[in-house]
Amino acid sequence: MLDNLCVVLVSPRNPLNIGAAARAMSNFGCADLRLVSAYRVAADEARSAVKADEVIQQAREFDTLAPALSDCTLVVGTTSVGHREVHHRLVKPDVAAREIRKHCALTGKSEAGRRVALLFGSEKFGLSNDDLAFCHFLTRIPARAEHGSINLGQAVAICLYELVRSVKSPVQAGLSGRKNPAQGEDVERLCQLLLEGMRVSGYLGKQDQAPEQKLRRLVTRMDLNAADARVWQGIVRQMLWKMRQTAGSELREPE
Amino acid sequence: MLDNLCVVLVSPRNPLNIGAAARAMSNFGCADLRLVSAYRVAADEARSAVKADEVIQQAREFDTLAPALSDCTLVVGTTSVGHREVHHRLVKPDVAAREIRKHCALTGKSEAGRRVALLFGSEKFGLSNDDLAFCHFLTRIPARAEHGSINLGQAVAICLYELVRSVKSPVQAGLSGRKNPAQGEDVERLCQLLLEGMRVSGYLGKQDQAPEQKLRRLVTRMDLNAADARVWQGIVRQMLWKMRQTAGSELREPE
Repeated sequence: MLDNLCVVLVSPRNPLNIGAAARAMSNFGCADLRLVSAYRVAADEARSAVKADEVIQQAREFDTLAPALSDCTLVVGTTSVGHREVHHRLVKPDVAAREIRKHCALTGKSEAGRRVALLFGSEKFGLSNDDLAFCHFLTRIPARAEHGSINLGQAVAICLYELVRSVKSPVQAGLSGRKNPAQGEDVERLCQLLLEGMRVSGYLGKQDQAPEQKLRRLVTRMDLNAADARVWQGIVRQMLWKMRQTAGSELREPE
Repeated sequence: MLDNLCVVLVSPRNPLNIGAAARAMSNFGCADLRLVSAYRVAADEARSAVKADEVIQQAREFDTLAPALSDCTLVVGTTSVGHREVHHRLVKPDVAAREIRKHCALTGKSEAGRRVALLFGSEKFGLSNDDLAFCHFLTRIPARAEHGSINLGQAVAICLYELVRSVKSPVQAGLSGRKNPAQGEDVERLCQLLLEGMRVSGYLGKQDQAPEQKLRRLVTRMDLNAADARVWQGIVRQMLWKMRQTAGSELREPE
């Protein structure tokens, strides 16, 4: 049912939760699980559990988030109660599900590029601001604030349920979706080029907090399509080359 | 949020699942957990877990289902994939949620009687036909049949999520609801009276399979209001008295 979706668990700590997430994915027909900087022991234990699911057996592991999202064209983050995030649009799970389906509906299954990532943070801390910077928008399951966050396996189950729940409801393709959206790796390449450009150019002041994060949000908000991302890369790369050229022949800046 | 709802776990075996169900209830604002013929060890372990929730601490335990439902006016059962049940109406969780909210909306919170029970069966076998006979209707979470049933804690989480999800959606009271519906204990009393009546009267043939179950479905389908239930009880009780009176003075039936 959820052929174009991947579930990304960032820094999961509890093997039971990893197993429960995999089980929920299996129940709802989602096969692509990615573990990012998972606790070594937790991942191993989840894989070797007696009732381990095929999904967990085939899960891929990554050290950082960027490569885990390299083939994704839409990244949706989940936040827990109490988590304040002012930089992103925050929608209810049913709205998130509708947008995800809409995104997937724009192209057929054949087009491997149109992959959607659903991000879940660690049990204790949720997604970090660095993680959130990769997201196009966020979703939150409504729950009572005073009772803390929802169990990881249950959160995965609820989000996937929401995606399959009204799968028959009419999906209007092409309303707000980008044509041929850029994949994560293209966006990431542009981010790195820009960051390098900002460093080399001296744009970054020493007091700038988390510039990479801010930049990534900036680029993500561009909602780039693939062709534009390449054009942008070319522009920035060229500027970088030029800056370095000049830097060599330039006088040192006055201190 | 879910003041009028109770979650009933029938024969749960795994303390982790009981704990997860309690945690989900806490997340979504449902405080009334009832355990029916729970595995002794499982219930104790769940209560004594380090992260045990207030909900599990206050859970009530019952040996059989009837007393657990004694104050409930609507009983909704959950079934897993592959479970075939032909005697009941089976609806999707969002439809079930709508009907539950409608039922609750008919009276204010003050009327303690209007309690809705959401039934979950054991991890291995789900609800038995005996259990299902208590239900007004059933609901099933859509999942892939070949991948077995959904984890108990996740099933509870999904059903409660569905109940709070669209809590703001308009609820039309009085459309299909019974005025002042009979509580479980009244329905149960009538069932027992009728069953006794069927036995005493010789209605029950030796080859009758599961007569109590069939009878309970029959009575549940009546969708009794409280006053009518009392009237029915009176009628059957009177007939029973009469049958017993006659039985004493009667000649033995020819063999």
